[in-house]
Amino acid sequence: MLLTIFDNNSKCNITSQEMGFKKKILAIFIIVVFLIFWFISLHNRGEVNRPQLPSSDLLLELSSLKDKLSKMSSDCHRDKLPEYEAHLPVIYAVTPTYARLVQKAELTRLSHTFLLVPNLHWIVVEDAEGPSSLVMKLLQHSKLNHTLLHKPTPKPQKLTEKEDHWKKHRGVDQRNEALQWIRENLDAEKNKGVMRWTKRVSVWPVGLVGGMMVERPLVDPKTGRVSGFNSGWRPDRLFPIDMAGFAINLGVLLRAPNAKFSFKVERGFQESEILHQLVTKDELEPMAANCTKVFVWHTRTETPKLPIEQELIKKGHRSDDAIEV
Amino acid sequence: MLLTIFDNNSKCNITSQEMGFKKKILAIFIIVVFLIFWFISLHNRGEVNRPQLPSSDLLLELSSLKDKLSKMSSDCHRDKLPEYEAHLPVIYAVTPTYARLVQKAELTRLSHTFLLVPNLHWIVVEDAEGPSSLVMKLLQHSKLNHTLLHKPTPKPQKLTEKEDHWKKHRGVDQRNEALQWIRENLDAEKNKGVMRWTKRVSVWPVGLVGGMMVERPLVDPKTGRVSGFNSGWRPDRLFPIDMAGFAINLGVLLRAPNAKFSFKVERGFQESEILHQLVTKDELEPMAANCTKVFVWHTRTETPKLPIEQELIKKGHRSDDAIEV
Repeated sequence: MLLTIFDNNSKCNITSQEMGFKKKILAIFIIVVFLIFWFISLHNRGEVNRPQLPSSDLLLELSSLKDKLSKMSSDCHRDKLPEYEAHLPVIYAVTPTYARLVQKAELTRLSHTFLLVPNLHWIVVEDAEGPSSLVMKLLQHSKLNHTLLHKPTPKPQKLTEKEDHWKKHRGVDQRNEALQWIRENLDAEKNKGVMRWTKRVSVWPVGLVGGMMVERPLVDPKTGRVSGFNSGWRPDRLFPIDMAGFAINLGVLLRAPNAKFSFKVERGFQESEILHQLVTKDELEPMAANCTKVFVWHTRTETPKLPIEQELIKKGHRSDDAIEV
Repeated sequence: MLLTIFDNNSKCNITSQEMGFKKKILAIFIIVVFLIFWFISLHNRGEVNRPQLPSSDLLLELSSLKDKLSKMSSDCHRDKLPEYEAHLPVIYAVTPTYARLVQKAELTRLSHTFLLVPNLHWIVVEDAEGPSSLVMKLLQHSKLNHTLLHKPTPKPQKLTEKEDHWKKHRGVDQRNEALQWIRENLDAEKNKGVMRWTKRVSVWPVGLVGGMMVERPLVDPKTGRVSGFNSGWRPDRLFPIDMAGFAINLGVLLRAPNAKFSFKVERGFQESEILHQLVTKDELEPMAANCTKVFVWHTRTETPKLPIEQELIKKGHRSDDAIEV
């Protein structure tokens, strides 16, 4: 429409005219300018019905939102390993494990809890000569960031099937293997961890352990510091707490290159063994609302009784032929 | 800039001038129109350095993306109950539960698995006279869509602490209570469920149950139908499978208003009792890659031994005073 007006005017005959013509030109000029401004104002209100290219800022924001949406959707639905969020320290969780009937069931449900935790790296250490296909596949399918290690317990130290589980140390070499991997692969400057926001060593209550409903650090409400422990079993331990009840800052661990677990201490003293090399009681940081909440429990899964399977095996056809359980 | 040009022109003296003036006016007119078009073209290329309102389509897309991002982020981080996704049938998962030492630990880890499943509604039924504070708070904090029910087992039917767990039926009245809630609150037309994509009743293997490594339906690879079961315990059952090994479509359940569990059948026959009212063996839909994969295990958590707690209770100060375990 504007172009038509412009063309009409340019074709006007302007060789010899009176004042009226000047007025007409001025009037047309004013009308055209007015129309153009009206057009621009319409345009700016976004009411003109024709395609419009957006500003580069908007395109960038749109594209960034689409990226975020797609990444989050993919993380949520676990189609790929999650990327670490830069602003959040990584939690390196160490799980020693050994082959048994309920191994896959127990690792599977632990992986479900870990999937809910952003920035978690799962270090699984098998008590075995090499990695097992079961654990390897489980980790691959878990959609968790992970590292699979293995270290067999020396035979004299290894529990036999008939021994009670508390008769010997468990997971000593496997936990040390994880510590070694951490020391060789992580850098205190680049990798912030182990347990989020822990400056040195943090502690919290553990339910159903040590023969009690809850074993926990006692916290002085005035100072907010750990003043003692409520443990009933061997309260003479330097750190009478359970393995599930503490976390160590990565930097602290890396600055103590020799700190590790040991077969040479009394049974039940592994926690004290590692912690006394890293921290004093006064430095402990109480978590879980000053150690007044239970977020962790010590449970044990029963060993299933499989009498019918024993019969099947005698007959030479087991129920789990070609099916991993 | 444009406004300045316009003002200058409107103030021109046009009372008495020669042809040169007409030419000047025309020239200015052409220049102004040219400038205005040049300005519009710049404007459209998004290179003009001033705020610009985008088209309503773009604003809508931007706003919709921001909404999705915020919803997904919130679902991911579980700050609020997730909304159901309209395109996905809801899974109504029924869990009968009873008060015991490991109750909170077990419900907590089950909730962690459920948190990974979109569109899940958890129906928890307590074997109790009323809802317990422990389960109520756990569900509130779980960030799962849920319904809490309760129904006490009549005393003659209830297991005592000293009886073996298989001596009596368990969860009969609680499961029936859940079925009743489903019938009273759900509509087959509006609510699609129970187990995603199940048309009638679907079945799959369960690990570590029935005295075997895996109890599973046998599937004829030619027809893709269930041809039998591998069960070793009471294979004469009509449906010799475990309670964890099947799901029922909501419509099928609602069209059979009397189908329920019963105290009147033999122990271990609850699965057959409910299923024979809803489906025939030929109609079963095999899941888990034609029942060749184990995604579900039957495990039992040991009852913790708490000798030190017993001593504490005698002395009048228990470890879990004011702390829920």
